[in-house]
Amino acid sequence: MPVQTSLNIPALMNIATRLRIDSVRSTTEAASGHPSTCCSAAEIVAALFFAEMRYDAADPQNPENDRFVLSKGHAAPILYAAWAEAGFVKRDELLKLRRFDSDLEGHPTPRLPFVDVATGSLGQGLGAGVGIALNARRIASDYRTYVLLGDGESAEGSVWEAGDVASFHKLDSLCGITDMNALGQSGPTHLQHDVEALADRWRAFGWNAIAVDGHDLPALLEALDKARQTRGRPTMIVARTLKGKGVSVMEGKGGWHGKALKKGEELDSALAELQSQFVPEEGPAHRPEPPRPSRRPAPKEGTVGASIYRLGDSVATREAYGSAIARLAATDDRIVALDADVKNSTFSDKFEQQQPHRFYQNFIAEQAMIGAAMGLASRGAIPFPSTFAAFLTRAYDFIRMAAISNLNIKVAGSHAGVSIGEDGPSQMALEDLAMMRAQPNIAVLYPCDGVSTEKLVERMAYHPGPAYMRTSRPKTPVIYGPDETFTVGGLKVLRQSGADVTTVVGAGVTVFEALKAYDELKAQGIAIRVIDLYSLQPIDGETLRRCARETQGRVITVEDHYPGGGIGDAVASAIAVDGFTIKRLAVPEIPRSGSPEELLDRFGISARHIIAAVR
Amino acid sequence: MPVQTSLNIPALMNIATRLRIDSVRSTTEAASGHPSTCCSAAEIVAALFFAEMRYDAADPQNPENDRFVLSKGHAAPILYAAWAEAGFVKRDELLKLRRFDSDLEGHPTPRLPFVDVATGSLGQGLGAGVGIALNARRIASDYRTYVLLGDGESAEGSVWEAGDVASFHKLDSLCGITDMNALGQSGPTHLQHDVEALADRWRAFGWNAIAVDGHDLPALLEALDKARQTRGRPTMIVARTLKGKGVSVMEGKGGWHGKALKKGEELDSALAELQSQFVPEEGPAHRPEPPRPSRRPAPKEGTVGASIYRLGDSVATREAYGSAIARLAATDDRIVALDADVKNSTFSDKFEQQQPHRFYQNFIAEQAMIGAAMGLASRGAIPFPSTFAAFLTRAYDFIRMAAISNLNIKVAGSHAGVSIGEDGPSQMALEDLAMMRAQPNIAVLYPCDGVSTEKLVERMAYHPGPAYMRTSRPKTPVIYGPDETFTVGGLKVLRQSGADVTTVVGAGVTVFEALKAYDELKAQGIAIRVIDLYSLQPIDGETLRRCARETQGRVITVEDHYPGGGIGDAVASAIAVDGFTIKRLAVPEIPRSGSPEELLDRFGISARHIIAAVR
Repeated sequence: MPVQTSLNIPALMNIATRLRIDSVRSTTEAASGHPSTCCSAAEIVAALFFAEMRYDAADPQNPENDRFVLSKGHAAPILYAAWAEAGFVKRDELLKLRRFDSDLEGHPTPRLPFVDVATGSLGQGLGAGVGIALNARRIASDYRTYVLLGDGESAEGSVWEAGDVASFHKLDSLCGITDMNALGQSGPTHLQHDVEALADRWRAFGWNAIAVDGHDLPALLEALDKARQTRGRPTMIVARTLKGKGVSVMEGKGGWHGKALKKGEELDSALAELQSQFVPEEGPAHRPEPPRPSRRPAPKEGTVGASIYRLGDSVATREAYGSAIARLAATDDRIVALDADVKNSTFSDKFEQQQPHRFYQNFIAEQAMIGAAMGLASRGAIPFPSTFAAFLTRAYDFIRMAAISNLNIKVAGSHAGVSIGEDGPSQMALEDLAMMRAQPNIAVLYPCDGVSTEKLVERMAYHPGPAYMRTSRPKTPVIYGPDETFTVGGLKVLRQSGADVTTVVGAGVTVFEALKAYDELKAQGIAIRVIDLYSLQPIDGETLRRCARETQGRVITVEDHYPGGGIGDAVASAIAVDGFTIKRLAVPEIPRSGSPEELLDRFGISARHIIAAVR
Repeated sequence: MPVQTSLNIPALMNIATRLRIDSVRSTTEAASGHPSTCCSAAEIVAALFFAEMRYDAADPQNPENDRFVLSKGHAAPILYAAWAEAGFVKRDELLKLRRFDSDLEGHPTPRLPFVDVATGSLGQGLGAGVGIALNARRIASDYRTYVLLGDGESAEGSVWEAGDVASFHKLDSLCGITDMNALGQSGPTHLQHDVEALADRWRAFGWNAIAVDGHDLPALLEALDKARQTRGRPTMIVARTLKGKGVSVMEGKGGWHGKALKKGEELDSALAELQSQFVPEEGPAHRPEPPRPSRRPAPKEGTVGASIYRLGDSVATREAYGSAIARLAATDDRIVALDADVKNSTFSDKFEQQQPHRFYQNFIAEQAMIGAAMGLASRGAIPFPSTFAAFLTRAYDFIRMAAISNLNIKVAGSHAGVSIGEDGPSQMALEDLAMMRAQPNIAVLYPCDGVSTEKLVERMAYHPGPAYMRTSRPKTPVIYGPDETFTVGGLKVLRQSGADVTTVVGAGVTVFEALKAYDELKAQGIAIRVIDLYSLQPIDGETLRRCARETQGRVITVEDHYPGGGIGDAVASAIAVDGFTIKRLAVPEIPRSGSPEELLDRFGISARHIIAAVR
């Protein structure tokens, strides 16, 4: 084993001890945190950061650096300790752990330049790792991706979704290490220390799996070496460890999850014990050479190009979306697309046809899809993951964490609302606007026609941070000309006059119901104002307030969505400061199968109901 | 094989053919739907419904019936056809598939008495099956639970979460059958027809797994027989099938997902082909004896009993919750609790100590936890699944489907908001109210003290349909006396006078910030009204409107939640019809680690900010 013999094992052992000391010290200073879960991972982290990974410690964002994702995010203190050992974080700073004035938070976030994705919601790191490894292919870099998982979090299905996708894509640059310390938060894990049982699961999911003693540095290094040499599939190293290793009061014992040692005797004796574990070194640890500085061209924004639709054409916004991302991708190689086996419904297959190498299939695994998108976005790609909007609820925790990371993911959800018709409520998204709008930094877009869709696809791609586009199943007429402009945070006043008795605010399919109501009412001599609120968040509150003022303070909202958290709430929130009267039309109850027209009318959001509300 | 030889295989073959004919016919009549995925499952459904399962076809809700969950819900037409074959559904009714005036929806919902949980969002059926099987233990019934899965949906991590939990609980009354037809919606599945690869995954997850030809009835019956005789672990039958089997235009072919045959030549030739597959019968199929009619006592509501708190005590609502469910369970054996490895944080461990046999551990697998709760609720239990509120986002699709099913699940989320402090944003629920309130039939409760928590636990247990309780991490003072009453849909006006200049609405931890603001302002001669909005949905709009009127139309909301979809929106929605002015205080951006007090103040929801808003 040439790799191992050239390494200085005693130096690595001492690094592991220092990582333990820093983890114990910083959590005690914070009076909270997770020293026990840091101690189980000390040899793993020492081996990765100081013998295996190639990275520039002075430039954690170097695109050629090997990447590390701490999926078991509660072990944050040892991550911070490793970067202190590497020289990037000042050791003093470690004692500010979990303080408001420090970026060393309780769980890692990308406020820190060496963190790609926020973790702390367990089971998400491997999904991100898949995306980071896919990105290496995209940019033709040979960086490797390492993900440290806990055994407890391996109960999360998202871990197995990511495992399935990683083996499908033959991601041999991806290496997971499971710190199998056998103890969850509240008791022993299901598999406890049965490393072979866990390794068998990984093998069944198509991975190379290696079981080792996670406190045996030569064994760890040998396993990492084998992983690096394995082609055609990812490797999972299942490392048997003891929670709290090295500190006898907590080593292998229950009741020590998320518990800092007390200052005084408890801390002092733990530190003395750890100090006694230092061994004589035979010289410094031999770290791999850092990668060469990157010389990649600065990225440039692309364009969807001229509109392919004409006024009066009929096209579903989902189809316009698929076409737009394909055209945009032709002009910007950061644009990638991800699917969860519905590409022929979301029309992301148009992208696949044009850019097969930047199209990533995840099968029916929405968490894996969003997780991979998070990883891709963290490394500079601009990913468009899409599925039925209803099934994005499956990945809401991933979306929440993407928002916390402020990642550049551009999520699209199709088949929104009762207007999908016969498939019934399980396929209808009626809470997606609420779910997305609840995250304060997600831009929420909901175009009604082909032109606004393609223009907004371009805008959302280059809007900094996460964005969501809701598209519809039925075809709708193109109402905007090719030169119309759209902005994140904008709206369109489609009909207005000095005599308007009320403002009707719709978006997506209800824009057309509002226009129908306008025509019918106009024939009866009643004028209404009609707004296409294609951007729910940010929202153009100023124009909404002006329109409300100009229509005697009366506003009607109409949406193919449940009442809570959608357009009605967004508009109310924007104008309520001025005390206007709002009437809301929304789907008031759980719907059922039927034709789209039947359902729009039955659930109170058709032109007929708008007219009744105006009256 | 005594079981098989006593059965009339030709009769079962003919049933399978009739099921295909009905599936093809009904989808063509509806002009949409999934005949191809019905055809692959025809022998499996025939074997289950007409040779294996013990059930009273005239009484699908008989508690002793074997249960069937169609996890691949898009195969709904064959489920309806099976119940027509069994005599419960009129055959004519099948041709009303997907119509607004029929309960035979595009995907099954519990509007139908033979459907326990709505399916159609893939990957959920096995989780529900786990709960249904756990319920058999709870009521000491020997019914068995069968779940029919698709191979496509087996990419969903939730399937593996359920698999892990089922093997942990040694659920040998649970039998899954995977219809491995190798074709997803948009292309071949990852494992295609590799039945052994899929069977190996199930074995690695602790299951008995049997690979068979899914069109070979004797082989299917033998596998079902082996499953029934297997003790100590669940069985997965991996059945190799052809999508569209029996209809050559679609058999084994791509491009036929979710596509009905066209009326005329296409339908006619398919029907002729199927008709030609009938074989001579040797007498009727021998169905197992139905179970005896059930004689179980009618359930009776229990009680939490007298309050264990006194005014001025200090207790976290999460702890009061754990204590209350334990006391309630002592008086009603339908009450069960489920955990995802945080029982010592949510205090559901108090329940486990009292009722270990009705406490179900799911490890860190929130989808499995909610899925099992759905299954339990569908069979008469009243489940209280709980975890950190932030991690309920992981199970939002399950919660959505539970709402569609209107299931009696009582979800509790602890550690809400920035008031948890140092752990940082990944552990803070700041969108849970939006997420829950977006479902129109979920009762959303948010008590602020120990007494209101225990009373509302009792109310939510017996509130029909799904309910959610949000609890907090920090201790708060008990402000209600032991005789105070609380209702789903109520609120408490805590401070009021004729001179109030504004109404301040809080809930949970912000009630105490509002009370602090009241005291400080009172000292300065300013009176405000203070409301504890412990029920966000349903909401007492009448009282809110009255208070708004009495305080000059001015309302301030304050919440430990993001601005979208929470208390501000709920109050605005309730009072906006009268055009009042609302000022909202909420967490405006992604927060970070820090102490609870620091964070409440920094993110604008402390007493200081309320006072500024009043001024």
